[in-house]
Amino acid sequence: MTVNRQILLAQIPEDRLSADNFRLVETEAPSPGAGEVLLRTRYISLDAANRAWMLGRTYRDALSAGQVMAGGSLSEVVESNDPGFKVGDLVSADTGWQDYAALPARHLEKVGPAEPITHLMSVYGIVGLTAYFGLIECGRPKPGDTVVVSAAAGGVGAFVGQIAKIKGCRTVGVAGGEAKCAALTTRLGYDAAVDYKADLRALRAACPDGIDVYFDNVGGRVLEACLFNMKDHGRIVCCGAASQYDGPHAAYAPRGFPGLLVTKRLTARGFVVMDFSDQYDKALADLKGWVASGQIKVYEDIIDGFEHLPEALVGLLAGENFGKRMVKVV
Amino acid sequence: MTVNRQILLAQIPEDRLSADNFRLVETEAPSPGAGEVLLRTRYISLDAANRAWMLGRTYRDALSAGQVMAGGSLSEVVESNDPGFKVGDLVSADTGWQDYAALPARHLEKVGPAEPITHLMSVYGIVGLTAYFGLIECGRPKPGDTVVVSAAAGGVGAFVGQIAKIKGCRTVGVAGGEAKCAALTTRLGYDAAVDYKADLRALRAACPDGIDVYFDNVGGRVLEACLFNMKDHGRIVCCGAASQYDGPHAAYAPRGFPGLLVTKRLTARGFVVMDFSDQYDKALADLKGWVASGQIKVYEDIIDGFEHLPEALVGLLAGENFGKRMVKVV
Repeated sequence: MTVNRQILLAQIPEDRLSADNFRLVETEAPSPGAGEVLLRTRYISLDAANRAWMLGRTYRDALSAGQVMAGGSLSEVVESNDPGFKVGDLVSADTGWQDYAALPARHLEKVGPAEPITHLMSVYGIVGLTAYFGLIECGRPKPGDTVVVSAAAGGVGAFVGQIAKIKGCRTVGVAGGEAKCAALTTRLGYDAAVDYKADLRALRAACPDGIDVYFDNVGGRVLEACLFNMKDHGRIVCCGAASQYDGPHAAYAPRGFPGLLVTKRLTARGFVVMDFSDQYDKALADLKGWVASGQIKVYEDIIDGFEHLPEALVGLLAGENFGKRMVKVV
Repeated sequence: MTVNRQILLAQIPEDRLSADNFRLVETEAPSPGAGEVLLRTRYISLDAANRAWMLGRTYRDALSAGQVMAGGSLSEVVESNDPGFKVGDLVSADTGWQDYAALPARHLEKVGPAEPITHLMSVYGIVGLTAYFGLIECGRPKPGDTVVVSAAAGGVGAFVGQIAKIKGCRTVGVAGGEAKCAALTTRLGYDAAVDYKADLRALRAACPDGIDVYFDNVGGRVLEACLFNMKDHGRIVCCGAASQYDGPHAAYAPRGFPGLLVTKRLTARGFVVMDFSDQYDKALADLKGWVASGQIKVYEDIIDGFEHLPEALVGLLAGENFGKRMVKVV
């Protein structure tokens, strides 16, 4: 038999997530049924949203204790009962944390080619597309705008900052810690960095004329600080609320909503990248051009080894990654 | 000399506004300078925003103690040093609470005619236009949408509900008290009413399929309840936060922001009616047509007597008005 390692979400965490909330089991790899494809997981994506799924229904059903931990992956077709897929094809799929998954072909999206293939999980994957559509469609940046990005070195944020520069904006990244903030300007091209762990009031000095576009990955106190520094007619892109996901005490409702939206005529728009799936081709063409020209640098934080998935997610929630974090399975 | 009664904002209230925060004085009516027009105040508008101006800078400078209380009025030209205005013209102006004001002609907007002229302060004034642009431009209602309106019998809300019906929507009004809620359905045509003072959970029963458009005049807990009942891709029109203006203990930051904006892909948009001033003609033509056809009923809450302005504002903040409140000066 072919062994299929699976990592289960053993318990829904009541406080902060820990590696102890997961359990590794070994089962037998499934056989694909009619219309199904057997996938070998190559890389598994780690995202703050993984933690949000444990809290309740979002844009997908809530996770429950005992199930294989959910997560997106870059996988390879190893057996196919569907004429649209052949052995060796790369697909993006919601396989969860396991070596093998048999899924209906209609749930799969063929991806690639790309060199290296990990770019299919970063700049050409969900995070690159999220940065692209969130900034361009929801943020509508104009040349000269001041664009603030939180979780600025994270999977999404790292691309938002670089795309905003391409669009002629002044960019300010918000992240935690001195070293990471230094890297925002030296490696990711941000014009300025604000260390939210040191003093959020630095935001005002970093944005002396106010904020035109705030790309929000974190919610909470950083969102509040940005609300108070928005310019009239500014746009807030609501992409995530990572500061609110991990632990019961994280909940913080920002002041200034809705009052500042009215007086400053702000728009706050939430989005999920799938809403733009009919425009992926155009986005991917743009992203490929920018990578080829060197205008976008791709930072990937790749951890080797399936068994490290739990600690990789816990570390991501603590903000230890720089760029898109993923686990290499094989 | 011509006496000019003025009501001063004697102190900025630290808690709830009371009539004691104002002081009536008598001065001499001003003489208009070059390019100025002397106005006789006819009707003064009462709005929740009057109270917000005391809290700090909004879309206008904060009010300060000792100044003539600010407020919009419908006024008549009694002397003119500008060729664009003649005696008897009606104008909409920011005269404040006084009998006479001399203002630069360039700050004045000629209005009318209308019968009765009070309609220039309600359906054809700021509140009618606010309802129109907020709902249509920011809310973008489609036939069949469920539209929820807070302060549903207030100056703005009363028109929002009726315009939403004209646009083919199902309308749910939120107001305080049994009598007012009964009047929402019998007088203003709402399909359902929710008494927020009784139990906000009634909102879910009133909107079994969720909310497409929430027109928010109040912020706070009603906004929070609506956030949790929004449909995917719903729109929140941020027009005001009246529940937050009066008193230091009113501040309540709704939960669910920004988390629910992301997972439900909501848009929250703040606006101020002046942003749409280039489209007033079209709006006024629509509103006149709807009033003429009986599709919009105009409720005005007119209090007679300049000296009653303070208590009229205090009462408005307590929610005692039905329809647009104004004070008749002369």
